[in-house]
Amino acid sequence: MSEIDTLHLALGERSYDILVGGGLLDRAGELALPVLKSPGAIIVSDDNVAPLYLERLRQSLAGAKIDCRDVVLPAGEQTKNFRHLEELINRLLDMKVERGTTLIALGGGVIGDLVGFAASVILRGIDFIQVPTTLLSQVDSSVGGKTGIDTRHGKNLVGAFHQPRLVIADLETLDSLPAAELRAGYAETAKYGLINDAGFFAWLEDAGKSLLDGDIDARRRAVTTSCRAKADIVAEDERETGKRALLNLGHTFGHALEAETGFCGALLHGEAVAIGIVMAFELSARLGLCPPQDTARVRAHYSEVGLPTDPPAIEGVDWNPDRLIGHMSADKKVEAGAITFILARGIGEAFIARDIGLDDVRAVLESCII
Amino acid sequence: MSEIDTLHLALGERSYDILVGGGLLDRAGELALPVLKSPGAIIVSDDNVAPLYLERLRQSLAGAKIDCRDVVLPAGEQTKNFRHLEELINRLLDMKVERGTTLIALGGGVIGDLVGFAASVILRGIDFIQVPTTLLSQVDSSVGGKTGIDTRHGKNLVGAFHQPRLVIADLETLDSLPAAELRAGYAETAKYGLINDAGFFAWLEDAGKSLLDGDIDARRRAVTTSCRAKADIVAEDERETGKRALLNLGHTFGHALEAETGFCGALLHGEAVAIGIVMAFELSARLGLCPPQDTARVRAHYSEVGLPTDPPAIEGVDWNPDRLIGHMSADKKVEAGAITFILARGIGEAFIARDIGLDDVRAVLESCII
Repeated sequence: MSEIDTLHLALGERSYDILVGGGLLDRAGELALPVLKSPGAIIVSDDNVAPLYLERLRQSLAGAKIDCRDVVLPAGEQTKNFRHLEELINRLLDMKVERGTTLIALGGGVIGDLVGFAASVILRGIDFIQVPTTLLSQVDSSVGGKTGIDTRHGKNLVGAFHQPRLVIADLETLDSLPAAELRAGYAETAKYGLINDAGFFAWLEDAGKSLLDGDIDARRRAVTTSCRAKADIVAEDERETGKRALLNLGHTFGHALEAETGFCGALLHGEAVAIGIVMAFELSARLGLCPPQDTARVRAHYSEVGLPTDPPAIEGVDWNPDRLIGHMSADKKVEAGAITFILARGIGEAFIARDIGLDDVRAVLESCII
Repeated sequence: MSEIDTLHLALGERSYDILVGGGLLDRAGELALPVLKSPGAIIVSDDNVAPLYLERLRQSLAGAKIDCRDVVLPAGEQTKNFRHLEELINRLLDMKVERGTTLIALGGGVIGDLVGFAASVILRGIDFIQVPTTLLSQVDSSVGGKTGIDTRHGKNLVGAFHQPRLVIADLETLDSLPAAELRAGYAETAKYGLINDAGFFAWLEDAGKSLLDGDIDARRRAVTTSCRAKADIVAEDERETGKRALLNLGHTFGHALEAETGFCGALLHGEAVAIGIVMAFELSARLGLCPPQDTARVRAHYSEVGLPTDPPAIEGVDWNPDRLIGHMSADKKVEAGAITFILARGIGEAFIARDIGLDDVRAVLESCII
């Protein structure tokens, strides 16, 4: 039986463990049992993930005598909207969900965000467990309690801070992930190096490709390092009044790119973040804050692992700097009309910047749109 | 200028004041200013209340240099649903609401619950202020941070605990309230006496009618006594893990009655609560827990002030004990299949009861349905 790395997110009564290892799906019952208020759970998954892992998870829970039902939703970012939230909640109420019932989110970031948000509002809040099955959700979205849905104005504009009771990240589920999804998650993994851990980024420059090719030790190190980095930041600033904003590196640009595609799925969230991070480094270099060679290193590494570093050609999308800036103005991170950017003084030296001139932002967008 | 009674709800960083007095609408700007994160607010009201008070509130805010916009929704319980929540949130996002913007709920319980819930989820949580204009919302729903919407399964099944930053209860707004609405709020006022303050109930038996007829001193005493009682309970048990459930006296029955009417408005929430409280006392007496004369006193007093004490004839509604019990089983207060009731050992002696036999509940319902 493979070893489990246990990370702890310290948040008082909202504290929880993040478990990372191989084959954890089959041990989910025994792992989850101690945190359940009552031995009743409802797994929520999507129609990509359910055929692969739902039955194994069900059996594991049944083995621990956890009464278990399930709901399977359509896969895709467009499931993260009001209509599906309402539908999910009504289905859970049809199933007579109680305050002691625990929801289990089995899937990627979309399922985790949607199920977490449903858990936060149903009966004014019930417990949930994250079982992330994508690299992106294992290294980022399953940890930290940000939940939510998109609206026509943008990503995650409606949601709640609602911490899971447990995160179970089974590294073996990454084996079934399409290569593009794996790379998209990799963009967020590398982000932790770029924010404040230059050594981790340097290691990824070396080990990134073998990680993507299936090296489970590299995956374990990448996931645990990412989760520890995120847990440390969230423990300090749960509700993003300060340094947690650093985790948004690349996201002001990235969310705008996604909004412009209408969340059609042609640009994965992690791909948008990769491009957004390159843009944030380009902006930092343009403002004289960051050595151009660091920006070049970021661009080169993302490019080397096969991630896009500039907005790609997508049918029906005509990238336009002013429209992208318009999307940024609708983002959550706007304060008194000013857009917040995360910039960098170099690799591993990200910081929060306000009062950035939109002319500079426009110039960077123009230079990146080919 | 009339005196302001200031009550404090102590909840650490979520603490706030409840201000009770005459003419407070015209002073709302100066009263609200100290709690605003930025001098920008959006008033949300309904088309019953807005024509009466929106302009006065706007002027008061403008006088304090608070930039102020507004949204007016249709009046009525049916506004508390997913569709209106989504619509409200989209309108607020259209108005480019920011994290520093404060929502102001101007109206009764429906507006307070809906706006509070919208505030809790928009941009993952912004501030809001309650300006309750009905007796029910002044004595109950504006205080304590319970927010939410109804679903086809029942009342308030989706929502959040989100405390307001301030409650401004202007007693003069009660002058414009229809008599039936005033009486409905009175049912919740008297509830505080029935829970744990027999002296307050005795005073209401004496002063209740003049309160309903317009005596402002009686209204002030009733509102401040109710708010203090509620604030004390909420400070001890914000998220209803224990004694806060006492505030649900009459609500297990009451919510079931409302659900059976389909929230058509033929039965006001407070009317349903009055009937529900009488049923809770009838059940307590039937179980030998409460002297029958106390049950009779409750029934007599509600009846005397003009409140219904049994399910009234409503077109299209055929009261059926088993269907009502079915609604109760879908309530938030169900634990491991058991319905929680608030019962009483007498006036001012309410307690939380589980494991109540459904045969007794059915018998009480049968005896009350004429």
